[in-house]
Amino acid sequence: MVLDRLQQLTHQVNATAPAPHPFDPLTTGEIDAAVALIRKEHGPVNFNAVTLYEPRKAQMMAWLSNPETAPRPARAADVVAIAPGGKVYDGIVNLDEKKIVQWEHTPNVQPLITMEDLQEVEFIVRKDAKVIEQCGIIGIPPEDMHKVYCDPWTIGYDERFGTGVRLQQALMYYRPHVDDSQYTYPLDFCPIFNAETKQIIHIDVPSVRRPLSKASPNNYLPEAIEKEGGFRKDIKPIHITQPEGVSFQVNNRTIDWQNWNIHVGFNYKEGIVLNNITFNDKGNVRPVFYRLSLAEMVVPYGNPEHPHQRKHAFDLGEYGGGYMTNSLSLGCDCKGAIHYMDAAFVNRAGASTIIKNAICIHEEDAGILFKHTDFRDESMVVTRGRKLIISHIFTAANYEYCVYWIFHQDGTVQLEIKLTGILNTYSLNPGEDTHGWGTEVYPGVNAHNHQHLFCLRVDPNIDGPQNTVFQVDAVQGPGEPGSEENKYGNAFYAKKTKYTTPLEAMSDYNASTTRTWEMANTNKLNPYSKKPVCYKLVSREVPPLLPKKGSLVYKRAGFARHAVHVTKYSDDEIHPAGRHVPQTSGEPSNGLPAWIEAAGPDCSIENTDIVLWHTFGLTHFPSPEDYPIMPAEPMTLLLRPRNFFDRNPVLDVPPSYARSPSQISSGKSDCGCQKNDGSSVLV
Amino acid sequence: MVLDRLQQLTHQVNATAPAPHPFDPLTTGEIDAAVALIRKEHGPVNFNAVTLYEPRKAQMMAWLSNPETAPRPARAADVVAIAPGGKVYDGIVNLDEKKIVQWEHTPNVQPLITMEDLQEVEFIVRKDAKVIEQCGIIGIPPEDMHKVYCDPWTIGYDERFGTGVRLQQALMYYRPHVDDSQYTYPLDFCPIFNAETKQIIHIDVPSVRRPLSKASPNNYLPEAIEKEGGFRKDIKPIHITQPEGVSFQVNNRTIDWQNWNIHVGFNYKEGIVLNNITFNDKGNVRPVFYRLSLAEMVVPYGNPEHPHQRKHAFDLGEYGGGYMTNSLSLGCDCKGAIHYMDAAFVNRAGASTIIKNAICIHEEDAGILFKHTDFRDESMVVTRGRKLIISHIFTAANYEYCVYWIFHQDGTVQLEIKLTGILNTYSLNPGEDTHGWGTEVYPGVNAHNHQHLFCLRVDPNIDGPQNTVFQVDAVQGPGEPGSEENKYGNAFYAKKTKYTTPLEAMSDYNASTTRTWEMANTNKLNPYSKKPVCYKLVSREVPPLLPKKGSLVYKRAGFARHAVHVTKYSDDEIHPAGRHVPQTSGEPSNGLPAWIEAAGPDCSIENTDIVLWHTFGLTHFPSPEDYPIMPAEPMTLLLRPRNFFDRNPVLDVPPSYARSPSQISSGKSDCGCQKNDGSSVLV
Repeated sequence: MVLDRLQQLTHQVNATAPAPHPFDPLTTGEIDAAVALIRKEHGPVNFNAVTLYEPRKAQMMAWLSNPETAPRPARAADVVAIAPGGKVYDGIVNLDEKKIVQWEHTPNVQPLITMEDLQEVEFIVRKDAKVIEQCGIIGIPPEDMHKVYCDPWTIGYDERFGTGVRLQQALMYYRPHVDDSQYTYPLDFCPIFNAETKQIIHIDVPSVRRPLSKASPNNYLPEAIEKEGGFRKDIKPIHITQPEGVSFQVNNRTIDWQNWNIHVGFNYKEGIVLNNITFNDKGNVRPVFYRLSLAEMVVPYGNPEHPHQRKHAFDLGEYGGGYMTNSLSLGCDCKGAIHYMDAAFVNRAGASTIIKNAICIHEEDAGILFKHTDFRDESMVVTRGRKLIISHIFTAANYEYCVYWIFHQDGTVQLEIKLTGILNTYSLNPGEDTHGWGTEVYPGVNAHNHQHLFCLRVDPNIDGPQNTVFQVDAVQGPGEPGSEENKYGNAFYAKKTKYTTPLEAMSDYNASTTRTWEMANTNKLNPYSKKPVCYKLVSREVPPLLPKKGSLVYKRAGFARHAVHVTKYSDDEIHPAGRHVPQTSGEPSNGLPAWIEAAGPDCSIENTDIVLWHTFGLTHFPSPEDYPIMPAEPMTLLLRPRNFFDRNPVLDVPPSYARSPSQISSGKSDCGCQKNDGSSVLV
Repeated sequence: MVLDRLQQLTHQVNATAPAPHPFDPLTTGEIDAAVALIRKEHGPVNFNAVTLYEPRKAQMMAWLSNPETAPRPARAADVVAIAPGGKVYDGIVNLDEKKIVQWEHTPNVQPLITMEDLQEVEFIVRKDAKVIEQCGIIGIPPEDMHKVYCDPWTIGYDERFGTGVRLQQALMYYRPHVDDSQYTYPLDFCPIFNAETKQIIHIDVPSVRRPLSKASPNNYLPEAIEKEGGFRKDIKPIHITQPEGVSFQVNNRTIDWQNWNIHVGFNYKEGIVLNNITFNDKGNVRPVFYRLSLAEMVVPYGNPEHPHQRKHAFDLGEYGGGYMTNSLSLGCDCKGAIHYMDAAFVNRAGASTIIKNAICIHEEDAGILFKHTDFRDESMVVTRGRKLIISHIFTAANYEYCVYWIFHQDGTVQLEIKLTGILNTYSLNPGEDTHGWGTEVYPGVNAHNHQHLFCLRVDPNIDGPQNTVFQVDAVQGPGEPGSEENKYGNAFYAKKTKYTTPLEAMSDYNASTTRTWEMANTNKLNPYSKKPVCYKLVSREVPPLLPKKGSLVYKRAGFARHAVHVTKYSDDEIHPAGRHVPQTSGEPSNGLPAWIEAAGPDCSIENTDIVLWHTFGLTHFPSPEDYPIMPAEPMTLLLRPRNFFDRNPVLDVPPSYARSPSQISSGKSDCGCQKNDGSSVLV
């Protein structure tokens, strides 16, 4: 009924200030206004999140198609707060009417752990008598406690403590010197922190103790490299410049580039959210995606020894990909002409805060877009491509995730993720066997096997919201070699399987058929191929969830059980592991499995408004070259138009060089066109 | 015994001119010398190939390890010639001793089809009475025969004509205007050309005729685009410049870059061949690969209707990736500071010829190499990477293959292939059903389903030639959730299976275990992980060969039956579909299957000199956006060092920005180091 109430609410346009776009993240002013209203009505609470309560889709679609006359969706804030005593409240504030439209106590959940929550643990750990005692046992004297560090993680789920008490586990490390990397000196015990009482309530101590490593530091910061002989001097500069500026226009948060139009949103959990993505097809603005985001991820570690099973971070749902985003103010992360966007959040005390340059938007040369040479006369064309990259980078304790949303001129959308940063490490005694659950990447340093499984949420809008998902398998034709129908045995075709229900749509990757998935609009056929217009998901890094069926991770990360799930669209189904992820037991499994159960696994997802959830990623068995800091490992997937366009949509990109048969036969080999970098054609 | 004879031969260093490196392709002078010797002894022959007869590995390894005193391998030419009457001769000429050491008639084979062979067919087709008759039947009057074109292909294998007679099949097209793309006007019949008699000996005519399409042209050259409204004008220039030049040194054909040392060879079949690839690991020059090349490929089409089964081109073995290589003299294919290399070949008449700028060598910025920020104090490092790209582009009739050998600073070797150019097309009547074997990409234009399957030949030299291949599968640990050994069900590990014989090594990709393959030196363990040093093949675009077991393609393309084969090294095993590919029946299957059979499928490939053959590629179901010219579709694989280095080997690459905890606490946040583009650090 919250929904109903909001359906009614429409935005009163403020005559003086331009109203934010309904998809825009909350401004600091809006955050402050929401906080003030809640303070006023509900007194002192700690704020966990104040973020955009996204416009209801039905109302938003109406407004998008008719912004002049359709009611403008209200600006609203989605609030998570923790009252004294740890009571969690979920609220919605209508900012146009300055009214709290929802304020509900949500029992037995834990909202995500903020950076502020993380920051306070280390100081408490250092002063805790039992921690000091444990440090002593492995060889760290009390006077060295300032050299003890910890990466606080949400506890995930520990059946001994359940969900009621807000907890963190402290992964312990040591730094001989403040500039040393602590990951070379992992400590073998794990304190558990109560976020309400600010106390260490328990310490998990292994049966086999592992004294502090005596190995020399293994560092990556410049001072250490200088000591080791310094930096290589044989790299000559590459300058990338755009003297005339960029090829895109930014109107507030809406970007126009090479026929694409994209609204760039951002929130504390998912980070970048791309909305209302359209492609201008020869003057016809065609909707492609209503919303794209990285909605969740899980990083299960493969060491079965207690308490390592607790290491399976949901970095988005438990910490927030937005909250952990790097400020790119220092530059150096991108080259060329960069357009940055900031990100606004609330802090625990209710003040609005800003991450400067949270989002980087820039163009890159994309190499050859297309080329052909006629072998007869060397008539030819070669055209270079461009790409638009919308990126952010977030740091999850030891690890870095660089997220690149890449738009290509030919209608392809690419999601690339680069993994870098530092391996999570645990201590290993000299000569101790890792039992294959990890790799000794440096003396005394055990880097455990792990997976990075991401969940891409695709809300397709392929020429409208009425879409259908097909599984496409490359298969052999009928008939054995020698048979009449397949005499030479070479027949093969694309076998398409329509998903009519969420149950059918629970599907895994199949490399033997190089499986892809098509999001199609069956109401619109390509005039030439007579096939439905669609976008195809091409994704090859699709490992299965390795934790077994019935395991803790399997239960908590329901979205990761299959490469693809498809659900009927629902406004409130954004987070596939649930709204509040920390300390969920997985019984029942929140998010996708619960939604599918509730809507009915046999409900129709055919020719209707649907959402496709894609789990992809990689399995990482560490090796010494990943240490002490990991060279970036890239991973990518594509969303490609198929039977969507009547024709290659980039033929009008100016070629670098072209010459026609008649130009050659007449001795003229200059195409008379410009290179697409503006300089004149080479002949 | 040819081999024995050559083992003896060593190079007499010419005091005056510097001798070519033993891996260097033949110079024009060497080609001319070989031709002269053969002319003198064997009179008039047509030359099909005169290329480097590669040094025998044993001798070459000895020389590489001791160039001062070990005998220098002889320069020798590998010759293929066709004598009058079509007799094929395989010869070897020792260029140092000016002596023909082998000249053998090879019965019942057909050497590859050269560009000269292809060029002559169209003229003959246009004059052939029966072709003119067939054109008339589908609506092309005799006076328009100059508008008739053909793409001549090797016939592949047609049981009606066998191997004895040298044949080509002419895929027929029509151009309304000389500047129109003929692929929009495919003709429905297929003449067969006898290369000896220069006659059309047969025409395959379909039972259902397909009159010439009346559709308007669908073109991509600038004049046509201008007529349709011209080029987009909203692309601003991106300039990529290297004011201080490139970061690599080229010594003849040997490249030094970022600890890599690579010899760049080139031949008419494989195109780029990379030899003696080493990595300087802190002063220790370590061998990595003896030889890398794209050794073969096959492009099976999936339409079972006769005669389309003949469309399964082996573009390297049947035409030559080197022979078909584009001259990049016109530039525009790469940006930045480019180093080019030419390619020298022989023509039919025996004259040496040159393709200018056949190979492009350049550097590119590679984005973030590594980054980490400490959430405590925002101490951090971010370092940008570089890549070195050695590339060539070849045109196989309608199609373009852009081949990029990419070297990364962290020891990774990447092979990227971009597919572009034009779809092979066949005619379709209005309303005719494609039966799913193709897609109507434009009225009357049927683009058939096809695969592109490439065979990467890897001759590993991982700290020496004694290598072993392991299959690595990510698998779940033993014990169900709740069991003592795997209480939380999260156990997983890397299961390694040693290949001891070629039979065991015949393996396919398995996505459910994200299978990789390791080329390891089991004689050398990583000091920390205690695992063998190795390079891992990470390849995800690995479709199975879709033509069925026992099919024509299955028999002819034995290499494509599995993702991986491993063989014991043999000097003469380079071409996995055999030395002479055109018109092979596949009975027996040449190349890999024959070699494995001959050496014994159970011979040992453990801890010895081995070669890994990897088949990868993609399955292409065309769609209208691929037409009239295809936006480049990329495909990539990685060869990554694992347990090879003691540590991340790029820590000494100057960071773009860094600041240490102590710098921050002391208020200094400038790392005092240079950005790796030479400019000073941002603060």
